[in-house]
Amino acid sequence: MAKEESGKSDKDLFNMSKEESFSEWYLELVRRAKLVDQRAPTKGFDVLMPNAMFIWEKIQGFLNSEFAAMGARNAYFPLVIPESLLEEEAEHFEGFIPEVAWVTHGGETSLENRLAIRPTSETIINYMFAYWIRSYQDLPLQVNQWCNVVRWETKMTKPFLRGREFLWQEGHTAWATPDGAKKNVDDALKAYRRLLTEVLKIPCMFIKRPEWDKFAGAEDTISLETLMPDGKVLQAGTAHNLGQNFSKPLNIEFLNDKNEKEFVYQTSWGVSTRLIGGLVMSHGDDHGLILPFNLAPTQVVIIPILFKGKEKPVLEKCGKIKQEVEEMGCSCVIDESDSRPGEKHYYWELNGAPLRIEVGPRDVEKKNVVLVRRDTAKKVVVKDKDLMDSIVSEAGALDKALYNKAKKLLKSGIQDATKKEEVKELIEARAGIVKIPFCSTGKDGEACAEELKEYTGGGEVRGTLYPRPEAAPKGAKCPICGKAAKELVYVAKAY
Amino acid sequence: MAKEESGKSDKDLFNMSKEESFSEWYLELVRRAKLVDQRAPTKGFDVLMPNAMFIWEKIQGFLNSEFAAMGARNAYFPLVIPESLLEEEAEHFEGFIPEVAWVTHGGETSLENRLAIRPTSETIINYMFAYWIRSYQDLPLQVNQWCNVVRWETKMTKPFLRGREFLWQEGHTAWATPDGAKKNVDDALKAYRRLLTEVLKIPCMFIKRPEWDKFAGAEDTISLETLMPDGKVLQAGTAHNLGQNFSKPLNIEFLNDKNEKEFVYQTSWGVSTRLIGGLVMSHGDDHGLILPFNLAPTQVVIIPILFKGKEKPVLEKCGKIKQEVEEMGCSCVIDESDSRPGEKHYYWELNGAPLRIEVGPRDVEKKNVVLVRRDTAKKVVVKDKDLMDSIVSEAGALDKALYNKAKKLLKSGIQDATKKEEVKELIEARAGIVKIPFCSTGKDGEACAEELKEYTGGGEVRGTLYPRPEAAPKGAKCPICGKAAKELVYVAKAY
Repeated sequence: MAKEESGKSDKDLFNMSKEESFSEWYLELVRRAKLVDQRAPTKGFDVLMPNAMFIWEKIQGFLNSEFAAMGARNAYFPLVIPESLLEEEAEHFEGFIPEVAWVTHGGETSLENRLAIRPTSETIINYMFAYWIRSYQDLPLQVNQWCNVVRWETKMTKPFLRGREFLWQEGHTAWATPDGAKKNVDDALKAYRRLLTEVLKIPCMFIKRPEWDKFAGAEDTISLETLMPDGKVLQAGTAHNLGQNFSKPLNIEFLNDKNEKEFVYQTSWGVSTRLIGGLVMSHGDDHGLILPFNLAPTQVVIIPILFKGKEKPVLEKCGKIKQEVEEMGCSCVIDESDSRPGEKHYYWELNGAPLRIEVGPRDVEKKNVVLVRRDTAKKVVVKDKDLMDSIVSEAGALDKALYNKAKKLLKSGIQDATKKEEVKELIEARAGIVKIPFCSTGKDGEACAEELKEYTGGGEVRGTLYPRPEAAPKGAKCPICGKAAKELVYVAKAY
Repeated sequence: MAKEESGKSDKDLFNMSKEESFSEWYLELVRRAKLVDQRAPTKGFDVLMPNAMFIWEKIQGFLNSEFAAMGARNAYFPLVIPESLLEEEAEHFEGFIPEVAWVTHGGETSLENRLAIRPTSETIINYMFAYWIRSYQDLPLQVNQWCNVVRWETKMTKPFLRGREFLWQEGHTAWATPDGAKKNVDDALKAYRRLLTEVLKIPCMFIKRPEWDKFAGAEDTISLETLMPDGKVLQAGTAHNLGQNFSKPLNIEFLNDKNEKEFVYQTSWGVSTRLIGGLVMSHGDDHGLILPFNLAPTQVVIIPILFKGKEKPVLEKCGKIKQEVEEMGCSCVIDESDSRPGEKHYYWELNGAPLRIEVGPRDVEKKNVVLVRRDTAKKVVVKDKDLMDSIVSEAGALDKALYNKAKKLLKSGIQDATKKEEVKELIEARAGIVKIPFCSTGKDGEACAEELKEYTGGGEVRGTLYPRPEAAPKGAKCPICGKAAKELVYVAKAY
């Protein structure tokens, strides 16, 4: 074991404190675990490395099944949107204008009508919907696209969480009735919740955004709100009920079954690669990434402990195990590199391999191996004959432990408060989400929300619980204006 | 049957002549079969509709397995490339300059260094490779990305075949030896050939491009050349051996196993959504799309023939068949729309559903159905108990027939010639590919190739057979300059 210990002094050892320096820990981890490379030449346009794309493709696979079950089909719409078209939808687009990247030249030619690179695709997709929709028989119409979008952030960028280009999916739908649209929003939210809980092992709440924080043009915006270990919330996905706010200006009409013209009811919903950031922050520790079993590029790593002259039986045993693991459909690597065992441990911990198997000459003799779970790091001696069963059960136990830990964080991270001083104290202590009575999530409440944010140093009114907002206790008052509070709202710092 | 015949007069009937007006037939078909919508507001930025994305995703799935087997992993690189970086690689990039779309503004801010939207990603990916590669242990390095690219075409655009934005994959690799790079080019070509023959059912040839028609910066460019029914060839994919042409200007060095610095040897390879255009052109007919079984969104369509009072047993039987078909893992739709059976036939023919099943009251009584294959349109009566076996065998037979038909076209579409008049005649007759002795595919031959193209009204010297060029017969002469011809080259009009 001395040898292994010595590995700790290795210059490549990852050993950052998630507790003490969360932001540095995160930046260092996404770099060292080769999820992202920020050295690309344009700020905010990061490289998603294979380890991150692996996770993104798993997310894509899961959501494609969910979307298909909802009745949505994938399509692909143009990257660019003419400025003249955007002007038709000024209300929606105004909010995006400060962060649009503009194409002004094609080859040597200056364009008459400059082109926005899509920051989101409502405008262009609805432009096509106006062609595609004629009668109620064309409805519902549900399309989804996986694509890149560009938002010219002027604030600090951060890998996965805030970039100028990111990958996402955006679903866009049109319905004959408001109820159809509403149900679609709920279906999208449920699909996303399944993604979070079943795949990413991150619990979430549905939060309906206040009036002033909705997506431009939406009637309702509902977020999947997750709590990160640093006490900030992360919007992990959103679904918007757009009502007729796009169909009216863009003339997306249909003939209903009474042969009358009517504007369609619409929704849009999306998640992005920021989910990968949430995954890293939720589960990682001071040694590196911790990944749910199905999101790990290498699920089982085998470390042979080699002594001169005794290599052969050890490597043979490793090969046999690898074969069996792969036959179960899991990915497996034997780390035969020249590094010392300790270095190998740190490397695979950094990269979040969920299970590690150590095989030495003694293990060959005794017909067992040492099995180590990434999250607990506990070494368990397992009989050869039980190994495959143990892999399955430990993989399940790891997933469950990750979810439960995150769930505990979310539960214990919601505190009640009634006074603004309490909110300030809790927000400053990074205690998480504070639930308070509040005057209004309508336009009226915006001034109080701004004052609260200023006063607490960043605590935002995120909104009310969806679908049922919680009523404020009788006689409760808004901690800012002192007016009667109808509902409870959630306040937190946010990514 | 009278009812069905009457369907032919329906305004929605697709009935174009592929033989007589190939180009109109193609444009009308991709529109009517809802593969693409060209009404998006910016020329050359078309919408890929769900029927096309379905095919593209099948291509992605197949190639992802192939690339993984080659050792490549997916990543994602920035959409934009700073002009200053492009200038470092002027030789490569010059060719793209006339068709680059430029981003000049981020929000309200004018950018100091304007940004090219990637027309291809060699520059940006190699920029990262310079960071990632240190020693021979980092090699080979193989990444692939699925993304959109923009090339500001000034010529006529055509859906899938020539657009300003298209989707593609681009693999980029670095090797310690020239042999490694060369083998990688061959591996990529073989993967693409498997895609074409096994998935798309289109045969191809490997053609090495002449010196003047290589990818900018490549030592060798090899194309997968396919022949379309109108006598033009379509470059269905390419692989480039880049040698050290990028690693030298961009300083991508590694320490070899003798601890000496050396520049890496590189390749790149790609296919794009133009494959969908090739698929449509290769197999479609005057009634619409014909799709290989695994590329059809709806593989089996069931048409119930309903007579008043006899609907129930017919629909029950249809439901039972659908269930069995789906249990086999195939997609199936019962067309219960209000259209007449004839209209339904035309609709599903247009959309390329490979197999159609007709079920009427008589079929219920007689315990059989009528099964119709899309390509032959032959109606076969099949016993209920044999239906699933027949579906499997007819699906296989359809795929085989598509491939064989296309193979026959390619074989019979290659003609030998020795005189320029013959070449002109064959090219003008749209007879396909003409194989001729030619002076040189090196720089020396460019003038002759240009003259030949002019003389024949568009016949291009596409290159020589790869990996082994065919020797010209003894004494053979270039039909243009009359100098001794070493090799045989392939001449054709091209998309």
